[in-house]
Amino acid sequence: MSDKVTVLVAGSWGTALASVLAANHPQVYLWTRNADQAEEINTLHTNQQYLPGITLPANITATTDMETALTGSKAAVIVAPSSGMRQVAHSMKPFWKEDMLCVHATKGFETESMKRMSTVISEELGCSEGQIVVLSGPSHAEEVVRRCPTTVVVASPDDKRAAAVQELFINNDFRVYTNRDLLGVELAGALKNIIALGAGLSDGLGFGDNAKAALLTRGLAEISRVGVELGANPLTFSGLAGIGDLVVTATSQHSRNWRAGSLLGQGKPLPEVLDSMGMVVEGIRTTEAAYAISLKLGVQMPITDQIYHVLFKGRTPLAAVEALMGRDRKTEMETISQETWEQWHS
Amino acid sequence: MSDKVTVLVAGSWGTALASVLAANHPQVYLWTRNADQAEEINTLHTNQQYLPGITLPANITATTDMETALTGSKAAVIVAPSSGMRQVAHSMKPFWKEDMLCVHATKGFETESMKRMSTVISEELGCSEGQIVVLSGPSHAEEVVRRCPTTVVVASPDDKRAAAVQELFINNDFRVYTNRDLLGVELAGALKNIIALGAGLSDGLGFGDNAKAALLTRGLAEISRVGVELGANPLTFSGLAGIGDLVVTATSQHSRNWRAGSLLGQGKPLPEVLDSMGMVVEGIRTTEAAYAISLKLGVQMPITDQIYHVLFKGRTPLAAVEALMGRDRKTEMETISQETWEQWHS
Repeated sequence: MSDKVTVLVAGSWGTALASVLAANHPQVYLWTRNADQAEEINTLHTNQQYLPGITLPANITATTDMETALTGSKAAVIVAPSSGMRQVAHSMKPFWKEDMLCVHATKGFETESMKRMSTVISEELGCSEGQIVVLSGPSHAEEVVRRCPTTVVVASPDDKRAAAVQELFINNDFRVYTNRDLLGVELAGALKNIIALGAGLSDGLGFGDNAKAALLTRGLAEISRVGVELGANPLTFSGLAGIGDLVVTATSQHSRNWRAGSLLGQGKPLPEVLDSMGMVVEGIRTTEAAYAISLKLGVQMPITDQIYHVLFKGRTPLAAVEALMGRDRKTEMETISQETWEQWHS
Repeated sequence: MSDKVTVLVAGSWGTALASVLAANHPQVYLWTRNADQAEEINTLHTNQQYLPGITLPANITATTDMETALTGSKAAVIVAPSSGMRQVAHSMKPFWKEDMLCVHATKGFETESMKRMSTVISEELGCSEGQIVVLSGPSHAEEVVRRCPTTVVVASPDDKRAAAVQELFINNDFRVYTNRDLLGVELAGALKNIIALGAGLSDGLGFGDNAKAALLTRGLAEISRVGVELGANPLTFSGLAGIGDLVVTATSQHSRNWRAGSLLGQGKPLPEVLDSMGMVVEGIRTTEAAYAISLKLGVQMPITDQIYHVLFKGRTPLAAVEALMGRDRKTEMETISQETWEQWHS
C-alpha cells in the first residue's frame, strides 16, 4: 500500500485535515488552484490566509497539478466548498482510481440542485455513493491544528471503507468513530446551519441561554424529523455530526451562520447582512431548501418556518419568537411515530 | 377551583417559579423556613440572597407556616434542595390533599439512598409516584424572572396531571411541553451533572470547543444508555431535560458542577475544591452513584468512569483525557441494541 495521501483544496479545514494526516503518514499532498498558496505552503510551511500563525508539518507538499496530487495516492480527501465541489470532483476524474479511498468533509448542499456532496462526487467520478465516505463532527480547524482533543465521525454504508478511513485519520488527538449512515451525517451537517442561524437570531435579540438551549433542542428535534423522513437514522442526529456539531456551531461567534443570525436579530435587513459578511452564508439557502422540503413531505419544522419568514417574508425576529412561544400546548414527543411511542409506553 | 397555588422553599429556582405562577394566578404562596426572608419578600418584594436586584410580583405571599401555605391551594410546587426534600415533603403531609397537584422541580438524588425525588415525595405523602409531576429543562432562574423566553418539560405517566401542570405554568415567556417519562426526566436532570463536571474539567485543562462538544455528545450517549437500562425512554435524553439542560449547564460558568470540574482540571485537589465551593456539588456524588450502577448493570460509561477515577482514585485529569482519546476504534452507535441497529440498517 502506498504511503501517500491527498487532500484537495487548502482552505482552513482542508489544511487542518492535511496536518492530521501528516502526523500519521509520510507523504501528504495538498492540492490547491492557487500557485502562490502552494509556494507558501512548500517553502514557509504556513497558510496565513486560512490558518494564521500556524506552522504546518514539513511532510505536507502543496501542488496545483492534479496528476501529481493523485497519482499513487491511497486516499483522496475532498474539502472543497459546497459550491465548488462538482468542479473539483470533475478535475479529479482522469486520475482517480477505483481502489483509492474517497472521503469528503464538506458540509452543505450543492447550490440550485440541493444535492448532497456524496451524490455530486459520485456523479462526477462515475462511482456509487456507497464508495464515498463522509467525515463530520464538532471540529474548529484552529483547534485541530493546535492538537486540542477532537472527535469526528466517518460514515459509509460500507463498513470496510469506513474502517479504512478511521485508520487513516485516528491518532491520540483526533478520535474517529465510524457510522453507517452516510445520508444522515450529510443531512445533519447541512441542516444544523439553520439552527445555528436561529441561535444567532436569539442572541442578536438579546435573549439568554435558556432560549438558545431551547432552540438547539427543539431545532435538533425538527431536523431529525425531516432527516428521518428522507431516510436517515434518527440516532445520527444525537451523535457527533448532529448535536455535537450543533453545539460547536451555535455557541461559537466564529460561525458565519451564527453571525448572520445575530445581525438579523439586531434588526439589520438581510441584504445589508449579506453585504457585511462578504461570503456565502450556507444556512440561508439551506433554510429555503428545508422549508420547501417540509411543505412537500408534510413534516412540521416550526423553527425553520419562522426563520424562513424572517429571511424571505419580512417577519421581524421578535414576531418570529413570539410565534414560537405561542400558547398552543404540545407534548415533547408529539411528532415521534406512534410505534416508537408505544414501544416505550406499553 | 381555587385561585391559590403554592411553592415550597424560596431559593433562586423556587422564587423564579413563584414569579412565573404569579403572572398566571391571583394568589401565590411561597413557603420558607426563614422568617426574615418571608418578611423581606412580603414587604420589600425582593429576595436579595437568591435573586439580587430583582423586584418580585406583589401577589407572591411568603409564609413560614405550612398550614397557611397549603390550605385551599390547588397545587404544591416543591423546589427543595435534594438533601432537604424528604423533610419538606414530611412537613407537608398533614396539609396535603389527594386533589392537590404535586409538582417538583429539584434535580438530583437523595443523599445515601440515591432515590429519585418523586420516590422520596411519594413515600412521605403516602401517594403513588404517578401522582407526582416533575418540571425540568434548560432554565437559569435569573433569566426566568427577567422573562427571557424559556422552555421546560413537565413529566408524568398521567396525561391529565401533566396537562394540568402545563396549564398552571404556561405563558408567553414560559413554554411548557408535556412528556410521560417521569423516570427519564428525573434521571436526565441528575445524571447530566456528571457531564457538566467533565465539561468543566476539559475547560480547566485548557482544551477547546471541540473537546467540550465531544464530551457533551458522548456523555449524553452514556447517560442515555444507563437511563434506558433503568427504564427511561431514550428520546427523553434528546429533549429539554437532557441535551437542553446539559447545554445550559455545561456552557455556563454559573454551574457549580462545571466550576468544580474546572478547578480540578486546573490541578486543584478535590478537598481544596470542595472547601472553596462552600456548598454541595451534586455531580460528585452522582458520579459515584452512576459508577456503581454502571458496574452493577454492566453498562459502559467511559466518561463517568474516568471522572470517577479523577475524583476518588487520584488519576490526573490529563491521564483521564488520554484514556478517553485512546486508540481503540469504535463505531458511534456500538452500544445501541442490535434490534435498534437492524431496524435502521435493514
